[in-house]
Amino acid sequence: MSFSMYSASIPVFRQILGSLLAILDKTEAHIEEKKIDPNALLQFRLFPDMLPFTRQIQIAADFAKGAGARLAGADVPIYEDTEKTIGELKLRIQRTLTFLDSLPRQAIEDSAQRSVTTGSGEKAKQWVGQEYLMHYALPHFTFHATTAYNILRHNGLEIGKKDFIGSWKAE
Amino acid sequence: MSFSMYSASIPVFRQILGSLLAILDKTEAHIEEKKIDPNALLQFRLFPDMLPFTRQIQIAADFAKGAGARLAGADVPIYEDTEKTIGELKLRIQRTLTFLDSLPRQAIEDSAQRSVTTGSGEKAKQWVGQEYLMHYALPHFTFHATTAYNILRHNGLEIGKKDFIGSWKAE
Repeated sequence: MSFSMYSASIPVFRQILGSLLAILDKTEAHIEEKKIDPNALLQFRLFPDMLPFTRQIQIAADFAKGAGARLAGADVPIYEDTEKTIGELKLRIQRTLTFLDSLPRQAIEDSAQRSVTTGSGEKAKQWVGQEYLMHYALPHFTFHATTAYNILRHNGLEIGKKDFIGSWKAE
Repeated sequence: MSFSMYSASIPVFRQILGSLLAILDKTEAHIEEKKIDPNALLQFRLFPDMLPFTRQIQIAADFAKGAGARLAGADVPIYEDTEKTIGELKLRIQRTLTFLDSLPRQAIEDSAQRSVTTGSGEKAKQWVGQEYLMHYALPHFTFHATTAYNILRHNGLEIGKKDFIGSWKAE
């Protein structure tokens, strides 16, 4: 029985992006309740040479957007990294989810052996679809989403792994 | 073109477990160089109610072991959580890798629609193979591996995302 490239990609991105949205809701409530400066979380890094929370969310969303587009054979839309608030980060994720929903399912289903390119110029790299998804796009995506979660946990937000794993509709 | 359940699972676990092994080598060198107590890292938690580094590694390895076994239709071997040193954690990962290598490839290839059970008794949960792998086993696995990485980064270990993503042999 074969495995579906669509099932392995879009619903998984949707699952974790949905979790991040719900976690951002809890983050907003926490900021409100504790009267803290949102930037104390948005700009928090686990170590000085690591990326801050805002960038972790932006990059996670971008790995989902990039993977969806490349597997569908579509252009990767460019979203500027201008988010300054939790609300704007939620909109970034919602925009990403809307984009993923717009992609043609059959094109993604057919992408396991399709050639995929990341980067450009001297940094261009060629992949086969399934290798790109499983060894590159998903690990990077989950890495940044988890790091965003860990930043919030480290700062006392009362969430647990269930919030990260969230819920999904297998398709 | 269909997607392979084997390609989506065992080589991906091998990739990130291999990264963790290399990161543990760097951790040992760092401990040696800085003359620090290994338990300062092994028992470190990003927040008091989070699990310490040692448990993050054990659990990541267990999600790989459990997923490999269940997808292959084999019993999940039980490894006791007795590791007290970096060297023992490396052995735990190597033992897990050896187990993954021992699993019959074809059984995993055929597992996309196979019924898989996690837990037992009242906590037993039934899954279909591909849903279990993509929505549950892989997100949990990467979540714990990333949290282990973040604990080390937060404590000043000089590693980067390339160490986490590591290298792989797509199969």
